[in-house]
Amino acid sequence: MTEVEAREGLRPDDARARHLLRTLTAHIGTTVHVGVRNGRRGIATILTVEPKLTFGIRWENAVQQKLPIDILVGLPRPQSARKILHDLASLGVSRIIFFKPAKGDPAYATSSLWSTDEWKELLDKGVEQACSTLIPEVIHTPSLAEALSLSSNAGIRVALDPYEADGPLGSQPARAGATHAAIAIGPERGWDTTERAALKGAGWTLRHLGDRVLRVEAACLIGGGMLLAQLGAWRPHRPIV
Amino acid sequence: MTEVEAREGLRPDDARARHLLRTLTAHIGTTVHVGVRNGRRGIATILTVEPKLTFGIRWENAVQQKLPIDILVGLPRPQSARKILHDLASLGVSRIIFFKPAKGDPAYATSSLWSTDEWKELLDKGVEQACSTLIPEVIHTPSLAEALSLSSNAGIRVALDPYEADGPLGSQPARAGATHAAIAIGPERGWDTTERAALKGAGWTLRHLGDRVLRVEAACLIGGGMLLAQLGAWRPHRPIV
Repeated sequence: MTEVEAREGLRPDDARARHLLRTLTAHIGTTVHVGVRNGRRGIATILTVEPKLTFGIRWENAVQQKLPIDILVGLPRPQSARKILHDLASLGVSRIIFFKPAKGDPAYATSSLWSTDEWKELLDKGVEQACSTLIPEVIHTPSLAEALSLSSNAGIRVALDPYEADGPLGSQPARAGATHAAIAIGPERGWDTTERAALKGAGWTLRHLGDRVLRVEAACLIGGGMLLAQLGAWRPHRPIV
Repeated sequence: MTEVEAREGLRPDDARARHLLRTLTAHIGTTVHVGVRNGRRGIATILTVEPKLTFGIRWENAVQQKLPIDILVGLPRPQSARKILHDLASLGVSRIIFFKPAKGDPAYATSSLWSTDEWKELLDKGVEQACSTLIPEVIHTPSLAEALSLSSNAGIRVALDPYEADGPLGSQPARAGATHAAIAIGPERGWDTTERAALKGAGWTLRHLGDRVLRVEAACLIGGGMLLAQLGAWRPHRPIV
């Protein structure tokens, strides 16, 4: 919900109000988890149902933070992009940066996924799955080089490459003092020579995830998760209030 | 293919033969990657098309190995199980052990996923995606306790628990000399008290992946990948011959 809705309540014909009152048969006194998009989470108690559904909300003391990692992905086929948007929103990353890869298919950019709000809805669902409110920023760049420049300040900069990696991901400890990581995942057809040169020139290390070729969406999850662990970025779950 | 098919060839009406000859317009002299289920991979050159499609095959020198990890999963809804079967087959794990969790839904076991060959086909597709031939063993057990006993010899034994973990996964180095890992992932509704006691009693450590609740299939990939990295199990890709 928005901050205004949290203060002033929802109209009875609002889809969320209908879901609460009809599907979940909530009533005055029922408590539910609520969250403000990109803001606080809280426990809401229903105060009134008519003329508006209003809440008394106990807010969490400290807001959750986005996790300090950028995921750079060669724009994949829409069915892969859908999974990536959902799953990386659940993981809690700061930014998903899609770039047009040398060995990509230009048709992928014209999908209804991107011309409608479908991509935003997938982020919302991923964040809801995670009981979070923090929506990753999604950026599209025309080339890998521009994507790399957006993450040039990350203390850990790794690209996954099944074929020309220097070693497995995780085989060396995180750089001391690194607080932000970035990981680049190529397109299905792999990096081309120019892209590998751009990565090395910008100080990105090539790493692999073994001798199996994984789907792009699987590589995003494993790579992103491993770097978050290396950064020590994972905080324990705690009750909201 | 089977070893016999590799030796004696495919009949022209075989689906793989039709795919090669018609869809890919292969002909005598064309080379393709082939593999024997749970066996060797090779590069095959088409020798004859009629009366059978036969090959001259250069086999890889050393066969690929399954990766030394068991993934224990509380039997999830079929749509999650489908992704897990595919993605863990791609990852190359040794065994996927599904157990009936205390907070599970018995209906999940009656899905057509399990009563037909669909689950086997998903393993095949996952292995194909990875350019491998090694199909994970899939085991069903009636309880977590029985699943734990199957993996009691693993040198690393971790269970993911967003709520009662002792720390994040990856926060301590792998036990020296560990060559095999096992990771247990609970059902969507989480572990119950008895299951947590069984895990601790059998020497499994509770770890979390941060304060976001991930889908079961995402937790399988991140958790499995991280333990394979900790074991040093990832070998680099090399050309088959």
